[in-house]
Amino acid sequence: MNKRIQLKNRIFQIIEKATEDDKASKKFDIFIMTLIILNTIAIVLESFNSLSEKYSLYFTVFEVISVIIFTIEYLLRVWTSDLLYLYSKGKLSAMLRYIFSPMAIIDLLAILPFYLPMFIPFDLRFLRMFRISRLLRLLKINRYTKALTVIINIIKSKKDELLATVFMMLFMIMISSTMMYYFENQVQPEAFPNIVASFWWAIATLTTVGYGDIYPITAMGKILASIIAVLGIGIVALPTGIISSGFMEVVTNKFKNKEIKIDEEKKEMICPHCGEKIHYK
Amino acid sequence: MNKRIQLKNRIFQIIEKATEDDKASKKFDIFIMTLIILNTIAIVLESFNSLSEKYSLYFTVFEVISVIIFTIEYLLRVWTSDLLYLYSKGKLSAMLRYIFSPMAIIDLLAILPFYLPMFIPFDLRFLRMFRISRLLRLLKINRYTKALTVIINIIKSKKDELLATVFMMLFMIMISSTMMYYFENQVQPEAFPNIVASFWWAIATLTTVGYGDIYPITAMGKILASIIAVLGIGIVALPTGIISSGFMEVVTNKFKNKEIKIDEEKKEMICPHCGEKIHYK
Amino acid sequence: MNKRIQLKNRIFQIIEKATEDDKASKKFDIFIMTLIILNTIAIVLESFNSLSEKYSLYFTVFEVISVIIFTIEYLLRVWTSDLLYLYSKGKLSAMLRYIFSPMAIIDLLAILPFYLPMFIPFDLRFLRMFRISRLLRLLKINRYTKALTVIINIIKSKKDELLATVFMMLFMIMISSTMMYYFENQVQPEAFPNIVASFWWAIATLTTVGYGDIYPITAMGKILASIIAVLGIGIVALPTGIISSGFMEVVTNKFKNKEIKIDEEKKEMICPHCGEKIHYK
Amino acid sequence: MNKRIQLKNRIFQIIEKATEDDKASKKFDIFIMTLIILNTIAIVLESFNSLSEKYSLYFTVFEVISVIIFTIEYLLRVWTSDLLYLYSKGKLSAMLRYIFSPMAIIDLLAILPFYLPMFIPFDLRFLRMFRISRLLRLLKINRYTKALTVIINIIKSKKDELLATVFMMLFMIMISSTMMYYFENQVQPEAFPNIVASFWWAIATLTTVGYGDIYPITAMGKILASIIAVLGIGIVALPTGIISSGFMEVVTNKFKNKEIKIDEEKKEMICPHCGEKIHYK
Repeated sequence: MNKRIQLKNRIFQIIEKATEDDKASKKFDIFIMTLIILNTIAIVLESFNSLSEKYSLYFTVFEVISVIIFTIEYLLRVWTSDLLYLYSKGKLSAMLRYIFSPMAIIDLLAILPFYLPMFIPFDLRFLRMFRISRLLRLLKINRYTKALTVIINIIKSKKDELLATVFMMLFMIMISSTMMYYFENQVQPEAFPNIVASFWWAIATLTTVGYGDIYPITAMGKILASIIAVLGIGIVALPTGIISSGFMEVVTNKFKNKEIKIDEEKKEMICPHCGEKIHYK
Repeated sequence: MNKRIQLKNRIFQIIEKATEDDKASKKFDIFIMTLIILNTIAIVLESFNSLSEKYSLYFTVFEVISVIIFTIEYLLRVWTSDLLYLYSKGKLSAMLRYIFSPMAIIDLLAILPFYLPMFIPFDLRFLRMFRISRLLRLLKINRYTKALTVIINIIKSKKDELLATVFMMLFMIMISSTMMYYFENQVQPEAFPNIVASFWWAIATLTTVGYGDIYPITAMGKILASIIAVLGIGIVALPTGIISSGFMEVVTNKFKNKEIKIDEEKKEMICPHCGEKIHYK
Repeated sequence: MNKRIQLKNRIFQIIEKATEDDKASKKFDIFIMTLIILNTIAIVLESFNSLSEKYSLYFTVFEVISVIIFTIEYLLRVWTSDLLYLYSKGKLSAMLRYIFSPMAIIDLLAILPFYLPMFIPFDLRFLRMFRISRLLRLLKINRYTKALTVIINIIKSKKDELLATVFMMLFMIMISSTMMYYFENQVQPEAFPNIVASFWWAIATLTTVGYGDIYPITAMGKILASIIAVLGIGIVALPTGIISSGFMEVVTNKFKNKEIKIDEEKKEMICPHCGEKIHYK
Repeated sequence: MNKRIQLKNRIFQIIEKATEDDKASKKFDIFIMTLIILNTIAIVLESFNSLSEKYSLYFTVFEVISVIIFTIEYLLRVWTSDLLYLYSKGKLSAMLRYIFSPMAIIDLLAILPFYLPMFIPFDLRFLRMFRISRLLRLLKINRYTKALTVIINIIKSKKDELLATVFMMLFMIMISSTMMYYFENQVQPEAFPNIVASFWWAIATLTTVGYGDIYPITAMGKILASIIAVLGIGIVALPTGIISSGFMEVVTNKFKNKEIKIDEEKKEMICPHCGEKIHYK
């Protein structure tokens, strides 16, 4: 029994992010990373009709092997979840906590499209796109790089202001879309058949993407579009100003040698599973 | 008579933004907010021809009920306006002050499209778009959230610089449109029939939206468009720089622990009706 | 003779920017401003074929009157130029200095299109677009508003960095245009007939305008365009960062109460004719 | 023998960036710069079919002369490389170090397209585009201008954060492209034939270029495109914020009169060949 616990502990060490000395764990990390990258390449290549027809077998075999590996890894993670959430009440609680953690949902999403057609008779081909979600796991490896952590922390610290900007943007989209529908609907009913179609125009204009697939042709519509395009500059300026000030706070703190808000010196990490801070050493 | 004043006071408390304890007032706020959101959804759904034809009756009934509620609310607000503007000279003065306040105009604009066709024989269908203006009332609820207030205050504090940028932009649009008209009119008279049509091109280029519906084809026109596109970057850079410095002023103030310009600690609010500051507690 | 000098002095006072008390000078300023705005409106209206044909006579009469007024004003300014450049060596020197000042060139440019056809037999219709240059004179009135002065001073103080950005941009345009020409010319010779045509694509992409009139269709071309589009973000980010830091310098200075670089308190103005600083009172 | 060393030293002085007094070296610099600019103009002009046919001989002669000069210069630089890398172990080591330095590779790239067709029978016409790489040498002359150095140093000091942004961008492109392929492929297989084609859409949208050659038409595709367009604003905001804070660090340092990070006062230069710092005087 003690041996079983030892095995479980070892497996947990291996599947979790490697410490500096743990070579087996490191190799496992590299193996999974490589597999994810190969899977991503396979997804891209498979999208070419000529390739997917010609090498259909190879793609299938590779996917079956990949899914088996990822499934085993997923099950092992569920099994060892009580070692991750040490303070959980009971094993089941730890398992559920793990299963509903964002990273586990992403993992499940990536393997589910393979199993679902076995149970559900519908055409679920489009579900296959969720296989790409696996790629997000690579962020887990990179999120500990200093720069990405700084950026994510700055975005988090400015979450309120950024959400307020998004909120203002939604108001502008809603109001301008409705007005544009009333201006343009009668003149070009195919381009602006309803207000939801207007949303598409409003977003393309506010974000200054401007595909040019639909645009106003009436005088009033053009005046409204001009106002929205100019306000679109403000919508770019606001998050930029917010993020700039976030970066500046970090810089200002550095110079003042005061308590640094986004602490880079203290050995601190954010748990990828629960999002809570862990201080170590 | 005293009872009538008590009733009026109570109604005023209910229709105004709720204090923490006032449950009836809170319920009223939530009811009005829900009604506004449902109205917005109705406006969007009604724009689909298939839906508006099939459920014509339901849309009409819902609108009649909504307008009646909003009309009653509007009249109650006008009636209790002397409680809002306590320092007004007389009741009529308070009423007029309320009626011409921005929020009251928005409220009126939202219900007017319903009543106007009764008095005016013209086709005023496009006026119906003003029903969406109701949505702006939701800002009233959210404008007190810290982040949005900070953003709005920063924009206000930088009003002069932002307006100067808009002013420079208008100059660029005016001059580049005129020049573009002279360059392009003879080669593509349908795209650039007059200078006003050129405005549309100038705005789409300066804001970097670039729909691509009209663009220069002559060598001189392309050179001018290139210059305007490059200046367009400056037109994006200026407001961003202005807003960034606004956010930085707040940040700098925070660190210096000096008198904070955009005071978030002091209990202070801006009256939604007159825009003047009110200190409380 | 003394009277003639008095008259000249009075005329100079009137045509120059008015002091607070000088009512005649103020009226003249407003008159010229109004005339410029009316001329601008006339230029826009005249560009409509229907209007320019119908009211041809009115447009001509208005233009003749305007040009006569602007010509008289121009000649008076040349005549009184020795009062403006008090330290000039002789009258002719002052006149030449005035005539070659930017504002005088703009003034001349605006009236010249009227006189030129009398002397030169060519079709110089396109020269008429320079009439809009008159509008720039309104900047003279507004450039003293605090905000615009601050913005212009910040841009000036960051001239070197901004020019370096433009310089980098020109390099990118040159290199990417040449490469794109070699990638796309053989596949779509109409879209990319030569490198100069590629410039047009490169500018539209780098500035993120993206009209969509020409774009790469080869794999290599698309890869290059992707790189340029991403670098385009940098080209937007650089001037924004530069201008932000310019605004921040002003803000930082304000807080430090030190010598303020862009002095707003000292009564100082920049001479509109020679660009040199004038301290007064 | 001593004379040969003297000659070698003199040649090295001449081909390297001139010191203030060395007139021969300065003339050589100006000559090479002029030749590079003339070559660039020739490349542009040659791209016009009409010109390249008519003046074919002149273009060829000019290119042959240019390539001979650049080849001699390149060989002289290789020969004198031991004077540049004084601390190299032996002559060959210095040569190899020079040959594989970025600037030398650019130089070689610019002359190679001329010699290659002599040895390789394939059609390598497209290699001719690398002649434009010569233009990059002009940066060498200008990179010592203060402003460009400041900008490049700021970009370098923020390299990590900027790369993290690019990294996030690649993730967004990869995931959104895959999803868009699954949404749009069946409805418009010509626009989205495979995931690589989707990349092109994703980049055009994220960078807000928006050519409008391909765009989603399904509801899900439009929702995804809207999210990506909004995130695209963030992708513009991040580098801008990063670069702004970089410029601010310089500004803050200036005001504090402390040790200036990007030292502009100390006579220090970055060796164009090895990238290492050289302190002089």
